[in-house]
Amino acid sequence: MAVIKAEIRSGSYFDSAVLMQLQRSMAQLEGIQDAGVVMGTEDNKEILAHIDLLSPEVKAARPDDMVVVVRADTEAAATEALGKVEELLTRKKANVDQVKRPKSVEAAVEMLPDASWVLISVAGRFAAGVARQALALGKHVFLFSDNVSVEEEISLKKEAAERGLLVMGPDCGTAMISGIGLGFANKIRKGPIGVVAAAGTGLQQVTTRIHQLGSGITHGIGTGGRDLKDAVGAATFLMALDVLARDPETKVITLVSKPPAPAVAEKVIHKARQINKPVVINFIARKPTTRREGNLFFATGMDDAAALSVELAANPPDLSVGDDLPVKKFASGQRYFRGLFSGGTLAYEAQFLLEEYVGQVLANAPIKKENQLKDSLKSEANCIVDLGEDEFTVGRLHPMMDNELRVRRLLEESRDPEVAVIMLDVVIGFGSHPDPASELAPAVAKAKAEAEKAGRYLEVVVVATGTDLDPQNLDNQVAQMRAAGAWVSSSNEDVVRRAGSILRALNQEVEAEAVFTPVDLGTLKKELMAINVGLESFAENLTAQGTPVVHVDWRPAAGGNEKLAAILERMKKFNG
Amino acid sequence: MAVIKAEIRSGSYFDSAVLMQLQRSMAQLEGIQDAGVVMGTEDNKEILAHIDLLSPEVKAARPDDMVVVVRADTEAAATEALGKVEELLTRKKANVDQVKRPKSVEAAVEMLPDASWVLISVAGRFAAGVARQALALGKHVFLFSDNVSVEEEISLKKEAAERGLLVMGPDCGTAMISGIGLGFANKIRKGPIGVVAAAGTGLQQVTTRIHQLGSGITHGIGTGGRDLKDAVGAATFLMALDVLARDPETKVITLVSKPPAPAVAEKVIHKARQINKPVVINFIARKPTTRREGNLFFATGMDDAAALSVELAANPPDLSVGDDLPVKKFASGQRYFRGLFSGGTLAYEAQFLLEEYVGQVLANAPIKKENQLKDSLKSEANCIVDLGEDEFTVGRLHPMMDNELRVRRLLEESRDPEVAVIMLDVVIGFGSHPDPASELAPAVAKAKAEAEKAGRYLEVVVVATGTDLDPQNLDNQVAQMRAAGAWVSSSNEDVVRRAGSILRALNQEVEAEAVFTPVDLGTLKKELMAINVGLESFAENLTAQGTPVVHVDWRPAAGGNEKLAAILERMKKFNG
Repeated sequence: MAVIKAEIRSGSYFDSAVLMQLQRSMAQLEGIQDAGVVMGTEDNKEILAHIDLLSPEVKAARPDDMVVVVRADTEAAATEALGKVEELLTRKKANVDQVKRPKSVEAAVEMLPDASWVLISVAGRFAAGVARQALALGKHVFLFSDNVSVEEEISLKKEAAERGLLVMGPDCGTAMISGIGLGFANKIRKGPIGVVAAAGTGLQQVTTRIHQLGSGITHGIGTGGRDLKDAVGAATFLMALDVLARDPETKVITLVSKPPAPAVAEKVIHKARQINKPVVINFIARKPTTRREGNLFFATGMDDAAALSVELAANPPDLSVGDDLPVKKFASGQRYFRGLFSGGTLAYEAQFLLEEYVGQVLANAPIKKENQLKDSLKSEANCIVDLGEDEFTVGRLHPMMDNELRVRRLLEESRDPEVAVIMLDVVIGFGSHPDPASELAPAVAKAKAEAEKAGRYLEVVVVATGTDLDPQNLDNQVAQMRAAGAWVSSSNEDVVRRAGSILRALNQEVEAEAVFTPVDLGTLKKELMAINVGLESFAENLTAQGTPVVHVDWRPAAGGNEKLAAILERMKKFNG
Repeated sequence: MAVIKAEIRSGSYFDSAVLMQLQRSMAQLEGIQDAGVVMGTEDNKEILAHIDLLSPEVKAARPDDMVVVVRADTEAAATEALGKVEELLTRKKANVDQVKRPKSVEAAVEMLPDASWVLISVAGRFAAGVARQALALGKHVFLFSDNVSVEEEISLKKEAAERGLLVMGPDCGTAMISGIGLGFANKIRKGPIGVVAAAGTGLQQVTTRIHQLGSGITHGIGTGGRDLKDAVGAATFLMALDVLARDPETKVITLVSKPPAPAVAEKVIHKARQINKPVVINFIARKPTTRREGNLFFATGMDDAAALSVELAANPPDLSVGDDLPVKKFASGQRYFRGLFSGGTLAYEAQFLLEEYVGQVLANAPIKKENQLKDSLKSEANCIVDLGEDEFTVGRLHPMMDNELRVRRLLEESRDPEVAVIMLDVVIGFGSHPDPASELAPAVAKAKAEAEKAGRYLEVVVVATGTDLDPQNLDNQVAQMRAAGAWVSSSNEDVVRRAGSILRALNQEVEAEAVFTPVDLGTLKKELMAINVGLESFAENLTAQGTPVVHVDWRPAAGGNEKLAAILERMKKFNG
């Protein structure tokens, strides 16, 4: 019959490495079956219960109590083990290297004034306070600690944005700055790819794959996994993206995130679009609709993100595509898309793709019910009408054979002062009209001329589907449509994306851009020096990488007793 | 002041090409501003109202009435125009080539018994009847007509499945069989790609792009846009896929669809997975999570589908990947996945990818709320636990530093007789445990041995994240885990997909496969001959392609009067 015995220590602070060491030492004592040394949170008590280490004292422990519990063969063994706690803790302390260490962040900064970074891995409830001290001293913060509230995160990041400093975290596992790893970090070759990640192991996975593929990175900037949630709004992510955009050594930027809030993901993508570098994006659970849109490259997973980044760094893509958009020609108020299709599938694909650019797209045959156009004969907002739908073809030829309804509708749409872009399909081949462009092209020319007379500019874009062997000949049809002033491609996707890009530019509100003081690129490029507060092993790792580091022998104020700490804080303010 | 005047003809049947011709002729008459010649459906009356061609007589017209309406400068001009209807119709008839034509499908088959195909483009309400006649005569049906009910479609396709015949449609715009286009079809080079499309212009767009890229097709089989809806259940699509799988000339199969019903899309993909050829899939609005899974290649759009198909035809991929799955080693009842992660992003990506293979995946940090694991300490069904989550790390080291909780949990999971696959991550680098495999590998070996003793097989799969430059050395960690019997890769995606493939194989129910008589491949490959019922231009197009065709001079029974037709039908049955 096993015996469970526990000791509760209130108001003690030990870092989690010390707790683990103590637990291991206890578990190895004679007659001890299992041991647990943890803080007394509800989650920890559940884990202790699960592994049969719960006792009434443990149940009564509070979150800031240290719980030492053993399951022993006999009462005597349990008592003896608990009697050794003090000795084991002292032995651990004696092992610690006795070099003189500063007791505060301020004192550490005096010892190493050129440090640009403070690494923080103290228990969550103390972490924000330490981070605030670091920011006040003008240092970037690598905040490994978790169990920090989102309110604290927002407040820290606001202060950092004002000061042009990065707060990586909380719960930031990894960063790699100019070849030096902070926290959990792999040794990655230097190279042309810069990574921003709201994803700790995401950053490790992508950068290790980049290394395995023979390439390397400039910087890997972690932001903490909550940075792309609505409340935080990509505060650190946007600053990191901005500094990598300005870094001439970063040729490709790669963005990784745990499942982001959709609106925040779009905000980041919007910012990325304005950068004159290829940007590879892999946000988990945000399925891409395309491999490429302008300078943006969408990956299907972390492997794919790494491979795409390496490929783009080796073979830089042409980023000038889409520079010819006629955005400035439109009159004010022109802002809508009207698609008049004869092909149902072309119309569906257009709906699907266009939604990314303009939000809701109404249709007479919508992909989603909520986008049903009320009256197929009356266009509204951005909308797509498939004139090959059953409603239009009872006792009437299909619109690929008979252009009459489309010509009428085209002229009607072009008179709407809110319409900016009209899209048509010209589908040729056996069965279709013998020369559709001969009827559609004059209508396009007329529509454009009328719009011009009314002081507007009308963009007509056309997907031409067919081959050089078709009776109508594709090139001939394309030439007629172009002569009438239409923009023509044989790729439906290209046509829709061009229309989408124009509409997005027209509808771009002058957004309240996230305001922040830009990060000084020099602080990332100069020799990295750091101050470490919390897990000692993180300081050891920096030393192993040849990085100057000062480890702070940090203790919470009042030994972690929060009431007392609050009194001390008030007294300090009062005196200061 | 314009005058609107109309004439209504009841019980007349004219095909839509005749109606269009008449309308154009009327509109060109002296003093006529606009003309409309349509069947009197509600949709058509709305269109007439929209273009100001509505009158009280038009309003009163019924769906099977022919409406002739004009808007004229004067009463006299309107009257004169309507007076010419008969003459214009007769003139149109006189233009028709007077070769002796069969009046029925049966008679046409007698004239051209080797025809394998019947093209049907009569008005929707008569189309199913004609299709049924064609099936009874053992012919494939290309059913261009729209406005055919889904009930009729199901019934026709059921009959076709029994007979091993294809019903392409209703509302099938396009098919290309051995180089001959049916309906709306482009002239596409012959080549190695076979296409199945529940998408008319989708088939045209993809095949024209294939042609433009220098490749070509064997067959392009249309199914009608509703074939992948729940009610129809891919009836034609599965038969078409099956016949292309058996065609030695088809090296790559490409599948295209308008937005499909999700369950039917998965049914098709399931079937496609069993084919020993590369299959490229582009179902609009079904966003892919990967570029490749086994023999399946997922495209982001129609352009991408064409490009991928051409690429795969030119450079056949290795399809043997995944042939080594240990599916037969498991005991009956083993069916679940358990993921024990230290890396949050790895865990999220695993959730996201695994869902495709096993449906719901529970997690302590789920992507979607509904997948929340009730108790993080108790696994259920397929689930993923991130042990780096806040709940596990208060006053405890992160699981990348301390393997204790994971080792305990691994042994616990391995004792669950329903567990088949356990996934771990091993993340190395600065900050991580100095040799995680030294603790995890023995636990894996123990878990596998215990399972074996209990008569089960346990697959442990591991993603190893790190580099050759890391202090722990990636190769060393991989070697230790492999020696313990784990399957290891440095790609998270590869590991998850392997696990997913095993689980899918274990959970594969012996599905009620769609039962059909296979289509005779020979009917697609022999010289195409066809019977055409409906639009004369479709017969002309076949003739232009050098294809033998018999056009049926088809009229609805009782001149389209449905009551009378029903009486005749009953009498026929009674007499027959």
